[in-house]
Amino acid sequence: MDGAESIARTLTACRVDTCFSNPGTTEIHIVAALDAVAGLRGVLCLFEGTATGAADGYGRMRGQPAAALLHLGPGLANGLANLHNARRARTPVVTIVGDHATHHKRLDAPLESDIDSLARPVSAWLRRSARSADAGADTADAVAAALGPPGGVATLIVPADVSWSGGGQPAAPPAPRPPAQVAGGVIEAAAAALRSGEPAVLLLGGGALRRAGLVAAARLAEGTGARLLGETFPARLERGAGLPPLDRLAYPPEFAAAQLAGTRHLILAGAAAPVSFFAYPDLPGSLVPPGCQVHVLARPGDDAPAALEALAGLAAPQSRPRLQPPQRPELPGGHLTAETAAAVIGALLPEGAIVSDEANTSGLWLPGATAGAPPHDWLTLTGGAIGQGLPLATGAAIACPDRPVLALESDGSAMYTISALWTQAREQLNVTTVIFSNRCYAILGMELRRAMAAGPGAPGAGQPAVTAPGAAALGMLDLSRPDLDFTALAAGLGVPASRARTAEEFAAALRTALSEPGPHLIEAQIPPVA
Amino acid sequence: MDGAESIARTLTACRVDTCFSNPGTTEIHIVAALDAVAGLRGVLCLFEGTATGAADGYGRMRGQPAAALLHLGPGLANGLANLHNARRARTPVVTIVGDHATHHKRLDAPLESDIDSLARPVSAWLRRSARSADAGADTADAVAAALGPPGGVATLIVPADVSWSGGGQPAAPPAPRPPAQVAGGVIEAAAAALRSGEPAVLLLGGGALRRAGLVAAARLAEGTGARLLGETFPARLERGAGLPPLDRLAYPPEFAAAQLAGTRHLILAGAAAPVSFFAYPDLPGSLVPPGCQVHVLARPGDDAPAALEALAGLAAPQSRPRLQPPQRPELPGGHLTAETAAAVIGALLPEGAIVSDEANTSGLWLPGATAGAPPHDWLTLTGGAIGQGLPLATGAAIACPDRPVLALESDGSAMYTISALWTQAREQLNVTTVIFSNRCYAILGMELRRAMAAGPGAPGAGQPAVTAPGAAALGMLDLSRPDLDFTALAAGLGVPASRARTAEEFAAALRTALSEPGPHLIEAQIPPVA
Repeated sequence: MDGAESIARTLTACRVDTCFSNPGTTEIHIVAALDAVAGLRGVLCLFEGTATGAADGYGRMRGQPAAALLHLGPGLANGLANLHNARRARTPVVTIVGDHATHHKRLDAPLESDIDSLARPVSAWLRRSARSADAGADTADAVAAALGPPGGVATLIVPADVSWSGGGQPAAPPAPRPPAQVAGGVIEAAAAALRSGEPAVLLLGGGALRRAGLVAAARLAEGTGARLLGETFPARLERGAGLPPLDRLAYPPEFAAAQLAGTRHLILAGAAAPVSFFAYPDLPGSLVPPGCQVHVLARPGDDAPAALEALAGLAAPQSRPRLQPPQRPELPGGHLTAETAAAVIGALLPEGAIVSDEANTSGLWLPGATAGAPPHDWLTLTGGAIGQGLPLATGAAIACPDRPVLALESDGSAMYTISALWTQAREQLNVTTVIFSNRCYAILGMELRRAMAAGPGAPGAGQPAVTAPGAAALGMLDLSRPDLDFTALAAGLGVPASRARTAEEFAAALRTALSEPGPHLIEAQIPPVA
Repeated sequence: MDGAESIARTLTACRVDTCFSNPGTTEIHIVAALDAVAGLRGVLCLFEGTATGAADGYGRMRGQPAAALLHLGPGLANGLANLHNARRARTPVVTIVGDHATHHKRLDAPLESDIDSLARPVSAWLRRSARSADAGADTADAVAAALGPPGGVATLIVPADVSWSGGGQPAAPPAPRPPAQVAGGVIEAAAAALRSGEPAVLLLGGGALRRAGLVAAARLAEGTGARLLGETFPARLERGAGLPPLDRLAYPPEFAAAQLAGTRHLILAGAAAPVSFFAYPDLPGSLVPPGCQVHVLARPGDDAPAALEALAGLAAPQSRPRLQPPQRPELPGGHLTAETAAAVIGALLPEGAIVSDEANTSGLWLPGATAGAPPHDWLTLTGGAIGQGLPLATGAAIACPDRPVLALESDGSAMYTISALWTQAREQLNVTTVIFSNRCYAILGMELRRAMAAGPGAPGAGQPAVTAPGAAALGMLDLSRPDLDFTALAAGLGVPASRARTAEEFAAALRTALSEPGPHLIEAQIPPVA
């Protein structure tokens, strides 16, 4: 068999059953293999950012990688932003990039580029398949690397002649590798910190944000008085009624600093030491308070839930976790705002929902409004590269066809990968997209005012060019002139859509969307939060 | 002044008057400087691929760089595909990438990534500005590098603290550097080849495709019997009535090989030695025929028109160029096809038009139908990274506000960067976009059938997985289910649009679009060519 078929057969042997793609000529033999290999579903995306973001959403929900099949350097480049998010989420993703045939590389054909240099920044693992006889084993190694632990983006570059040449051999799936167990001494040190009586915070991230880790952490909070916080942008957070409630570390550094103020012991379970998302002239980058000792209980790749359970056994053996009671907001009426829209979502969020949250500033009230909704998963923008939300929802819906998916999306971010709606229509996915249409890059407005306010007096800051936002700068943050019409965009992509200007209209539209199969879009017209 | 303002002031001093951008927090001080610095126009794009493609279109038409201001690694990544095309076009482009503050880098914040690794493959010049006092000089160096010769993408990475810190100093513009003059011996060797009486081809590329180079080449053709060919994908080709006609080397390697068959002397003027766009199991990668001698008359960065004029003075001193007579197709009626659509365009193309051609397979008849139209510029997909056409048209329209711009665009490619239409609406650009809506990736259908046809008997080919395209593979090339409605998409982005199903409807829509100011879109529903 040719190398392409050996890749496809190895993928299915490794339980990779979905291939998101926008392919080209150098991948055409792998495309052809989709008909020869049962159990590998090709999902066409109109842009590579959708393919990679969908693979991220799939991997976050399944814990198994999907493949993203991309065309040469430019195709990979178009998918990089969402691979960056997947890297930060430590999602298992197998990226397969077709390259020119090995003997064609030196000719510098128009599409020739340094794929390795492009792939390296997002890839936990990177290999160039050298010959068709190796392609199967390379694919199995890519799956193993993607699964980790810790998981990540594994990129396999496949020259066209490796795909089309004979001698391909499918490889067996890699042996599962369990996460590393945390040493007893580490757990005992954390227990000692918790027993010290000094203010302690357990910062949870990664796998600690699933039910088992949350329950163990909540026992520790009950038994020791430690406070719980979740990382700012989790890959996947289980939450809702019957699960331990969890506040996340805030995005604005001043708020995060306030949450952590006075902490003497910061215990990291699957989370990194907290840092400011961006640097500012007048603020420190690290959010660890002065005099606070940092204890790394579980690093990425460690079994964080087991470590938390062992820690709870030592430090809070008798404690029971506080669990979130069922609780929903009243359905509001009147003006549609970020706040009333969040209340509607909290009132109607279905059990088992998967929420792809890229609402940005418009999402301020969402955590509170949905805290007591039936159990659901919350997926966030892990790497800060906007344009994730619609692709992530697409992949999550393919991973979990029996669960409702809700994409909560800001208008500016939606426009990066709007064509994901077409894939949702084609695959008839149960995704409801809510566009928070406030017609500006509101978060940049905040940042611009902050930069202005810092002004020339801020430590380290130069004399700024102007001291109040001017028309030219504000124009660069403005999404009106013309207004984007998301109902028209959805119609153009085959997704039924409606527009809501009041809370009542939004509730009615959301009920309809959640009750009908297939994708829907609701343009929620709201004023900016800030 | 702060570093940001010194960058903006240096740009304007260097005659960089346009900054295409989708900015973020790390660029916010440069955005703020737009209000302090007169003469630097910020143009907001909803996606970085539009910003970089627009900078490419601007640079191809002006010969001066525009700036593309991008946000960190992911923002650059989103712009890379069109920077790849700009690299192949050797367009002067100044890419400014905001990075985290220098002291923030080591904290590995969510948006941290290896920007240098991402930028290197597309950049002729790459620098990281180290301090605000250097930012102005770094910017001037970037402009100089972008201008070349040969021109290219110059990438300047600007940490946020370099932007916001004081001590910035604007720099003077770089001294112009003329292209290199070709040595007399090289010209004499080419003249000897032309005088040999053996079959010769002049392959023109880069700057040789403007009027002066074309006229000199046409004199050589008349005087020596050499045949003229243009490179397959020129950055900018001047053509039409009163200019020398020029066939371009074909994209399918068999056709290109036929065009070059029997050639004994291939003289390269600004073009690279011809190679197959992709490799195939049964075809050579180089398109230079056996026994053909390659003469490099002018490399990129050389003054190709001057070299051709000197060569004409030696080898064809008395010859006059053959010029294209004015000639337009009759306006066709009936079915709208790629062929009749091309005839309509040929019949109506206005004088001075700038054509952004990403019509791909649907463009087969365009060169013939427009050859005798009034003089115009033709811009093509230089690097093969689709999604160029709408951004390129956007930038060309900003560069040349008094000229009509026609974007001839395939449906699949249009979906990569469709939001460029919004920027056209916002800036009220005179761009008419024609979407050749054939509802498939037709070129991949050709490649898939070719791969199947090559089959197991082809030299070097393996046993393919299947020997006829199957439903799964064909599904990956299919843009129906659901059909894309480009009139709805355009409406969503603020651009008036119509749909044409007959040649008469298309002609009426094109007349209207060309006669009204501002952007228009026409969805031309046609069957696939192949």
